[in-house]
Amino acid sequence: MPGNAPPGVQVLAFDVFGTVVDWRGGIIAELTAIAAERDLSLDAAAIADAWRKRYQPFLDRHRAGLDEVVREFGLERLTEADLHRLVLAWHHLPPWPDAIAGLVRLRSRFVLATLSNGGMALLVNLARAAGLPFDCILSTELVKSYKPDPRTYQLVPSLLAVRPEQTMMVAAHPYDLSAAAAQGMRTAFVRRPQEWGTGNVDGPDFSVDVEADDFLDLAAQLGA
Amino acid sequence: MPGNAPPGVQVLAFDVFGTVVDWRGGIIAELTAIAAERDLSLDAAAIADAWRKRYQPFLDRHRAGLDEVVREFGLERLTEADLHRLVLAWHHLPPWPDAIAGLVRLRSRFVLATLSNGGMALLVNLARAAGLPFDCILSTELVKSYKPDPRTYQLVPSLLAVRPEQTMMVAAHPYDLSAAAAQGMRTAFVRRPQEWGTGNVDGPDFSVDVEADDFLDLAAQLGA
Repeated sequence: MPGNAPPGVQVLAFDVFGTVVDWRGGIIAELTAIAAERDLSLDAAAIADAWRKRYQPFLDRHRAGLDEVVREFGLERLTEADLHRLVLAWHHLPPWPDAIAGLVRLRSRFVLATLSNGGMALLVNLARAAGLPFDCILSTELVKSYKPDPRTYQLVPSLLAVRPEQTMMVAAHPYDLSAAAAQGMRTAFVRRPQEWGTGNVDGPDFSVDVEADDFLDLAAQLGA
Repeated sequence: MPGNAPPGVQVLAFDVFGTVVDWRGGIIAELTAIAAERDLSLDAAAIADAWRKRYQPFLDRHRAGLDEVVREFGLERLTEADLHRLVLAWHHLPPWPDAIAGLVRLRSRFVLATLSNGGMALLVNLARAAGLPFDCILSTELVKSYKPDPRTYQLVPSLLAVRPEQTMMVAAHPYDLSAAAAQGMRTAFVRRPQEWGTGNVDGPDFSVDVEADDFLDLAAQLGA
């Protein structure tokens, strides 16, 4: 149910993995490159999905999750350097094709922050590598917790000195928006049907303020 | 005593008020503009200096300090709107002439963060208004303290996932560098002889890693 832009919003807070960047495409590309170099046959998509499921939402525990995936998929031929390279791939994931152009438009009207379960260092590296024009990197690390803990959402109005209803959470995941709304934030659901490569979207079963097909559509709906 | 660039530095953390932006020039300009509109005669430089001394380092308490300055300088003819405009002037201060070009060069080689006693919202507004290309806004507000509390410096290596000696504090104020060095950070002193309009610089009386005339000189010395 598409909504109109709510008045008074000044700050947009973005989920990052899946919403801004295509973690699956980035990890598949790195796995495919390594497999070619090692003359290995592997199911890159299945491995990427298994890895992501392993550590979500503990985004800084890539390596522990990867060791499990190596055993599960029989990838013992990968070297220590290969595994390190795969962990580093999370630091330079590709943005969705609309992301940068959409963020640039949105930034002309709103303060743009991240709010991700990734750690600060990971988020800073990602933003640098992809050239993501955020005004402010916020991680749930700042309260040593993870979304959907209410304290993580409270970071946004608290640190940016606005009221909760002047902030809007932007995410491709309904659980994230539901928890943000419970803290008084506005909500924007962005469809990312290729996050898991399925073409399907599990949309919110509750009322959000905006539903958008991508960040350019979001910018248009928010008047940016 | 100019030093050479220390090896292994990955992150530069910048003091902001006086080091990156010219708070005095910005506040004098706003006071002068208001005085002209109100046909008031006032000593803008003296008022700016008195105001700054009032709230340093409590950078978010502009307004309380300003009310004291209004009484001290007999500025009761200023309206509530004038006072609000003066407080807002701290959110769009001009960068020193070399600052943006220097930061752009430094960013090609280092991760750039702020580390200021200004609050997060103030720093985000300043960076947006001036187009300061920081990768990450860090405020001592994140540990609810002020420099030179050791915990404020520890934020930089902790959040950016490097060792203290891989970080360098950049500041125009020796007290700031001394406290940073005590936490294991590298130090760069940047001369800002016009911060207080005097043309004089009180340099550090201890050994810093780098001394620079401005951010372009800093970039050259750090090989960026």
